[in-house]
Amino acid sequence: MQGQNQQQAYDRGTTIFSPDGRLYQVEYAREAVERGSPSLGVRTEDGVVLVAEQRVRSPLMEQSSIEKLHKVDDHIAVGSAGHVADARQLTDFARQQAQVDRLRYGEPIGVETLAGAVTDHIQEYTQTGGARPFGVSLLIAGVEDGEPRLFETDPSGTATEWAASAVGADREAIHDSLETNYRADADLDGGIDTALRALASVRDAFEPSEVTIATIDVETEQYRTLDDDEIEAHLDEIDFEDDDE
Amino acid sequence: MQGQNQQQAYDRGTTIFSPDGRLYQVEYAREAVERGSPSLGVRTEDGVVLVAEQRVRSPLMEQSSIEKLHKVDDHIAVGSAGHVADARQLTDFARQQAQVDRLRYGEPIGVETLAGAVTDHIQEYTQTGGARPFGVSLLIAGVEDGEPRLFETDPSGTATEWAASAVGADREAIHDSLETNYRADADLDGGIDTALRALASVRDAFEPSEVTIATIDVETEQYRTLDDDEIEAHLDEIDFEDDDE
Amino acid sequence: MQGQNQQQAYDRGTTIFSPDGRLYQVEYAREAVERGSPSLGVRTEDGVVLVAEQRVRSPLMEQSSIEKLHKVDDHIAVGSAGHVADARQLTDFARQQAQVDRLRYGEPIGVETLAGAVTDHIQEYTQTGGARPFGVSLLIAGVEDGEPRLFETDPSGTATEWAASAVGADREAIHDSLETNYRADADLDGGIDTALRALASVRDAFEPSEVTIATIDVETEQYRTLDDDEIEAHLDEIDFEDDDE
Amino acid sequence: MQGQNQQQAYDRGTTIFSPDGRLYQVEYAREAVERGSPSLGVRTEDGVVLVAEQRVRSPLMEQSSIEKLHKVDDHIAVGSAGHVADARQLTDFARQQAQVDRLRYGEPIGVETLAGAVTDHIQEYTQTGGARPFGVSLLIAGVEDGEPRLFETDPSGTATEWAASAVGADREAIHDSLETNYRADADLDGGIDTALRALASVRDAFEPSEVTIATIDVETEQYRTLDDDEIEAHLDEIDFEDDDE
Amino acid sequence: MQGQNQQQAYDRGTTIFSPDGRLYQVEYAREAVERGSPSLGVRTEDGVVLVAEQRVRSPLMEQSSIEKLHKVDDHIAVGSAGHVADARQLTDFARQQAQVDRLRYGEPIGVETLAGAVTDHIQEYTQTGGARPFGVSLLIAGVEDGEPRLFETDPSGTATEWAASAVGADREAIHDSLETNYRADADLDGGIDTALRALASVRDAFEPSEVTIATIDVETEQYRTLDDDEIEAHLDEIDFEDDDE
Amino acid sequence: MQGQNQQQAYDRGTTIFSPDGRLYQVEYAREAVERGSPSLGVRTEDGVVLVAEQRVRSPLMEQSSIEKLHKVDDHIAVGSAGHVADARQLTDFARQQAQVDRLRYGEPIGVETLAGAVTDHIQEYTQTGGARPFGVSLLIAGVEDGEPRLFETDPSGTATEWAASAVGADREAIHDSLETNYRADADLDGGIDTALRALASVRDAFEPSEVTIATIDVETEQYRTLDDDEIEAHLDEIDFEDDDE
Amino acid sequence: MQGQNQQQAYDRGTTIFSPDGRLYQVEYAREAVERGSPSLGVRTEDGVVLVAEQRVRSPLMEQSSIEKLHKVDDHIAVGSAGHVADARQLTDFARQQAQVDRLRYGEPIGVETLAGAVTDHIQEYTQTGGARPFGVSLLIAGVEDGEPRLFETDPSGTATEWAASAVGADREAIHDSLETNYRADADLDGGIDTALRALASVRDAFEPSEVTIATIDVETEQYRTLDDDEIEAHLDEIDFEDDDE
Repeated sequence: MQGQNQQQAYDRGTTIFSPDGRLYQVEYAREAVERGSPSLGVRTEDGVVLVAEQRVRSPLMEQSSIEKLHKVDDHIAVGSAGHVADARQLTDFARQQAQVDRLRYGEPIGVETLAGAVTDHIQEYTQTGGARPFGVSLLIAGVEDGEPRLFETDPSGTATEWAASAVGADREAIHDSLETNYRADADLDGGIDTALRALASVRDAFEPSEVTIATIDVETEQYRTLDDDEIEAHLDEIDFEDDDE
Repeated sequence: MQGQNQQQAYDRGTTIFSPDGRLYQVEYAREAVERGSPSLGVRTEDGVVLVAEQRVRSPLMEQSSIEKLHKVDDHIAVGSAGHVADARQLTDFARQQAQVDRLRYGEPIGVETLAGAVTDHIQEYTQTGGARPFGVSLLIAGVEDGEPRLFETDPSGTATEWAASAVGADREAIHDSLETNYRADADLDGGIDTALRALASVRDAFEPSEVTIATIDVETEQYRTLDDDEIEAHLDEIDFEDDDE
Repeated sequence: MQGQNQQQAYDRGTTIFSPDGRLYQVEYAREAVERGSPSLGVRTEDGVVLVAEQRVRSPLMEQSSIEKLHKVDDHIAVGSAGHVADARQLTDFARQQAQVDRLRYGEPIGVETLAGAVTDHIQEYTQTGGARPFGVSLLIAGVEDGEPRLFETDPSGTATEWAASAVGADREAIHDSLETNYRADADLDGGIDTALRALASVRDAFEPSEVTIATIDVETEQYRTLDDDEIEAHLDEIDFEDDDE
Repeated sequence: MQGQNQQQAYDRGTTIFSPDGRLYQVEYAREAVERGSPSLGVRTEDGVVLVAEQRVRSPLMEQSSIEKLHKVDDHIAVGSAGHVADARQLTDFARQQAQVDRLRYGEPIGVETLAGAVTDHIQEYTQTGGARPFGVSLLIAGVEDGEPRLFETDPSGTATEWAASAVGADREAIHDSLETNYRADADLDGGIDTALRALASVRDAFEPSEVTIATIDVETEQYRTLDDDEIEAHLDEIDFEDDDE
Repeated sequence: MQGQNQQQAYDRGTTIFSPDGRLYQVEYAREAVERGSPSLGVRTEDGVVLVAEQRVRSPLMEQSSIEKLHKVDDHIAVGSAGHVADARQLTDFARQQAQVDRLRYGEPIGVETLAGAVTDHIQEYTQTGGARPFGVSLLIAGVEDGEPRLFETDPSGTATEWAASAVGADREAIHDSLETNYRADADLDGGIDTALRALASVRDAFEPSEVTIATIDVETEQYRTLDDDEIEAHLDEIDFEDDDE
Repeated sequence: MQGQNQQQAYDRGTTIFSPDGRLYQVEYAREAVERGSPSLGVRTEDGVVLVAEQRVRSPLMEQSSIEKLHKVDDHIAVGSAGHVADARQLTDFARQQAQVDRLRYGEPIGVETLAGAVTDHIQEYTQTGGARPFGVSLLIAGVEDGEPRLFETDPSGTATEWAASAVGADREAIHDSLETNYRADADLDGGIDTALRALASVRDAFEPSEVTIATIDVETEQYRTLDDDEIEAHLDEIDFEDDDE
Repeated sequence: MQGQNQQQAYDRGTTIFSPDGRLYQVEYAREAVERGSPSLGVRTEDGVVLVAEQRVRSPLMEQSSIEKLHKVDDHIAVGSAGHVADARQLTDFARQQAQVDRLRYGEPIGVETLAGAVTDHIQEYTQTGGARPFGVSLLIAGVEDGEPRLFETDPSGTATEWAASAVGADREAIHDSLETNYRADADLDGGIDTALRALASVRDAFEPSEVTIATIDVETEQYRTLDDDEIEAHLDEIDFEDDDE
């Protein structure tokens, strides 16, 4: 561990290692992720669940335009946390990869393949000069050969697979809740509750308008978002932070 | 939050994050937006309204040449605040995108699609070296499938949709007024009054020559600007800052 | 407003904003404009007038080679102030644009179109690294569809339209005179007198050899320069600074 | 050996030597390797063994997604230690090289040839500006003409061949154990035990889920990974650090 | 006017303006011109005269190889002062321009056209990064449509036309002499005497080997250099500094 | 000779000379050569001998993979000292040059021609920015038109021919021994003994596994390496440092 | 003349002038020339003589490989002083120019033309960034239209013609001797003696192996080098420094 001045000597670009082998710009990009409101993913027997929190800054703002869940292909979607414009760039990149694969091979892209392509793209921004890393982490959820898959990317360009995970602010506390409550044999509704409960563990309360929920079903292999009534119904079942702490 | 010297270590370019994950050059570009006179947008049932204030520096200057509302296509227009030359570049970019879409697909570009293309362009200037971010925020207003849409872009390359919003100087105070007075079921005239009232809340008075007003009607899907008499008529109905404060 | 050291941290290139959202290199380029002898433009009912002052440094120097009024096309001319070589580059650029338009569309380029093309070119030098801004402001005068037009460009890449304006040294004092004396219904001779009177307001006296005068007539749509006798005749009618102050 | 300030003068890029002829960025990249959990390789008469340790950070994380052993071609695999995203880039590069060779020559690529191609690629990132070195060391294991081969790459772009080696954290201690216990005439099971014993010498204990084991058999020339039961069986035979120290 | 430290902040490259709008690198290039021995040009009714002083450093050096007058085309020649290798580059550039024009239009290039092309080339080196300005000023002399023309270029990329001028060391004193003695109705011999007298005003004495003299005649439109006897004859008629001061 | 601070002002890149005309980065690259174990070459009547010392770091490391003698073509080989990965790059470059020459001219490349091509390649890395010099010296040995040739390259890009030479650590002491013992009329065995004796003069003792020996015979024009028994036999005849000092 | 700190502000690259108009990197490259052993050229009635001194560092080094006289074409040769690898690059460049000219025009390249091409190439390295100047001066000697010619290039990219000259260490003292002893009507042997005498004036003694001598005869127009006996014979006639001082 080095002092402040030492660190500053090595943290201005992606093209240098610090003496102890760290890439500070990548670590700072992770801080950008921590600044963003969280997205969560939960894998269940029946499919994958994505939940994202959005901070509505004004009643005049359209909630839909700040939602962080996006369909990439029929059977794949992403959630994100961090620098919003970077997330859109990576989502666009993911969509192009999915289209190219469909055109080239005539079948839907695999979730793991897509996660690999996205993280390859991210890694390049951490090794070559003239650019900064992407300040965003993605959750890439989908169904592949009838199996639900959930991947997470980080600003270094690493992809990891999870049963359930979260990116963004309060990540550690949310993870604690997920680890406690996760059941592999839950159905989609159960997965949604697990995710909302984890988010609720770090919030006093939230409105249906403050969360987006989406699922990808192993049967239909289709992306689907829940409407406000459905969200409301799920929220009714959740205990919030001030309750259970 | 860091001290002055700390900040200076990370604020000279778009290709580095600060240790707490911020992009200072993008934040400074937002300051350039704050330095510009405001543009406002209000979405109504009958279409979208854009209002821009221009500061006429001399009676010899042609007001039309400093107006900040510009038609992008028949059914889409932009307002802006910030660095004037940057706004023109982005407006030109938007026009080209609209033309390309018409040529390629034989139909008018969607407002959301256009906002996405513009913000993708903006984002690239925040990640790659050798350039500075765009010092401008746009309001992109239009009609899409018979629906009025209003988007706002910021220097980070993020697009958000609004029922009513403002960019530029005094943004917060104007937003307060918009939030208070906005009625979703207003007609275009009502929308204009809402916008002028919000602008009036931060000004002692202004002349018809100091504002430009434009509408895009859901019926005609055509961009239209108001003449001085029409503006005058609207201004007569507005209370100014010194009145209502 | 920042201190000296603060400013120096942000003023070495076009690719960074200062913390308060300013582009110092563009502001310094404006200083280069202020260092140049002035050019003036006056729009009248019968056409546009351009007047430029040239500082003859030696009796052996050919006055014509330092004149700052240049024909761009039959119906368009430019005046300038600032870095002389930069002015010539932009004038060459304007001529090429005019030629290209004639070839492509078979008709003369519009004055506003030309001003837009020139300022687009200027703006690029304020956003991308590896170059400095143009240290020059142009007056672009011409006739378009029978109407006289007068535009001014600045180093940020902004174009504004004027009834009468001036660029270069003593701009503010000259503007004061123009605002006082401008009459929209003047003929070309009246416009010339307005311009010379404005210039005279900041000079003790000047010789015919020290000014160049050109007009573009709405009838003929032709650029024309006045000879020394004509200039002399106009100067006889002007009161100089020491008279009217 | 130089002082701290001296070193800092020469350690910011790959394009400069220090006065004593060192490349500090390459040395710092070696530190990144030391930060990673270890991978081990053991060459036996019957084939090559690769063993990697993975640190499972959460019960919700899929172990398979952080495994560090990857098949490159039927007969070649790599293990790694260090920056995970860099390892994936080099693994992808190795796979492409293997495919190209198959296409071009109609036969499997040689292990030494592949190690040379990978290290050529690595070396370029140590000599040319605008990038950083790869922060990863690979073990490249395979069968070539019926012979088992085991190569190691380092961040300088050097390839060396080993009977048994390890990369990553605790390298020296693991090497000591390998040197003590290595028997050239062991079979694959013996090789696995040698590797696990070496890893155990620096750990108190580990779970089957914390190691991945793979072999490439000289008979089949096929890459094969062991399942948890097989790993368990091997672990039962191992003494751990607190036992034998 | 700024202090020493202030100046140093803005004088390292051509791509930045100083806060008062100056380009220091261009000003320093002018110093390089001042360091060079002078070249003079005098326009007469019968043609143009060029005179250059060369400092012969050794009796073994061939005077011809340091002469600074060069034929560009039959009817155009250049003299120079400043960085010798830069002068040759610009002279080569001028020759190419002259050739290209002959090929393209089938007639000799105009003197003013050539001066414009050369200064456009010079200007580019003052605005774009990655190069320094040309440290040389040229006198471009020739006959165009039967008229003698004399242009001067400076390191900023500005061309000016003169009846008589000088570039290089002692420019101001030489100009004083030229202004005193210049007669527009002189013949070529008179022009040569005017130039030599001006040069003599800043020198105690010089040998025929220390000056080169060339003329371009309006009749023949041909470049011609004087031999030593002719130079000697002219020198006999000149009073030197110590005489007339 | 300059002080420490002075030197640091000029030693960060290949694109600047120091005030006394030195290229520090090239000198530092020579230090990288000095850090490497030595390679020696001896030219005899019957062919050329190359001897290289390798430091075996572990009994598990394959000696062959750290050998520093490499065949470039049937009749040419290289030895090296310094940065290992750089040596491999240059060796690959040499092999390509040899292949290209065979394809183009249908005959083996000359040794001097090859040395020239390699040093041209090295020189480019000492003059152009964006890279560092090669930290390696090569001995290029071969037979050309029946004559044995031995060249040495250095990091500045200079090639010199030798009867016998050495690169790397202890160069001066080894050279002293070579100068004392070299006999031009020796046969290959005599040349090997001369080289081993020179190496022994700076070592207490070494194992056969610590040296590689190769010859290129003028008769066969073929590269050939000695096996351990042959090396052992030669070592038996050598006195080591502690004996003869 | 400026102080040490002042100078350091402007001496790190070829793309900036110092405030007094100097290019320090070019001046430092001249120091690299001064560090090299000298080459001399003498023009006689019968042809041109080149003499170069080489410092043989070891009896094992082949003198021929450090000789600094090189044939460029049958009728042209170069000598050099300074950075050896740079000299070889320029010599290669000169050879290519000579070949290209022969191919293009079917006749041998002129000596002056070649000197111009070489210095154009050198000049580019003094104006554009990303490289350093060439640290070498060449003597270019040859026969052109039956006339002997001798040119010298310097690191600024200037070519000068000489009756006799020298580049490298002790240039001034050698020039003094050349000026004293040069006779234009000497034959080749006389020219050789003049050159050797000049070299001897700065040396106590030297061996035939320490000088290379070459001639280009106006009759044969062929490059020819003297063998050791011929050199010995000439040296016998020379007085050395300690004799004639």
